[in-house]
Amino acid sequence: MDPTQIATEFTNYYYNLFCTAREQLKPLYRDQSMLTFEGQPFQGANNIIEKLTSLPFQRVQHKVDTVDAQPNFNGGIFVCVTGALQSDNDQPQRFAQFFQLIPDGTSYYVLNDIFRLNYG
Amino acid sequence: MDPTQIATEFTNYYYNLFCTAREQLKPLYRDQSMLTFEGQPFQGANNIIEKLTSLPFQRVQHKVDTVDAQPNFNGGIFVCVTGALQSDNDQPQRFAQFFQLIPDGTSYYVLNDIFRLNYG
Repeated sequence: MDPTQIATEFTNYYYNLFCTAREQLKPLYRDQSMLTFEGQPFQGANNIIEKLTSLPFQRVQHKVDTVDAQPNFNGGIFVCVTGALQSDNDQPQRFAQFFQLIPDGTSYYVLNDIFRLNYG
Repeated sequence: MDPTQIATEFTNYYYNLFCTAREQLKPLYRDQSMLTFEGQPFQGANNIIEKLTSLPFQRVQHKVDTVDAQPNFNGGIFVCVTGALQSDNDQPQRFAQFFQLIPDGTSYYVLNDIFRLNYG
């Protein structure tokens, strides 16, 4: 399957769950997964989900503007996303996020995840 | 050496050359290197440098705000950069860029490069 198509489907799935049920993102991560969130490092599915579910907003909505994908030589896929997010009643903020997806049976998991707000 | 330190040194070197002598970035890329520039794919050092040197501005300056790094299991490093760039007399624009750096002797080359302007 085309890496861009996989990246787009992953992105839709990820941000939809992020918005509706963040704790259900956990199966996408593994013990060896790494998240760097606004410069803070986290390793392992438990620590990553604890961080994501403790973010201090009630509602969040991502508007994805661009999804770029490149294949890796191990069957993985690099995904770069840019867009805007709005949490609670705050002003929308630009963000950029990078994922490395690793094949796992018929699906993929997230080995690397780097998130940054990209202030104007 | 610490991945963040390598990523920071690479980033300084890369954007300094980008500003002063873009054609000298070529040794950082290889035949298997991939660039996705604003959604357009390029493969190989020749094609990548042809794209970078043909960008339609005379002067460009990058202001790097954040550099995040994560190690790869093959000794490589993932680097995510956010910042602003100003070309000629245009307004500054936000950007996000991702690199995968691969060790090569005592140095590194760029296997993956994804660049996006991140409009406000």
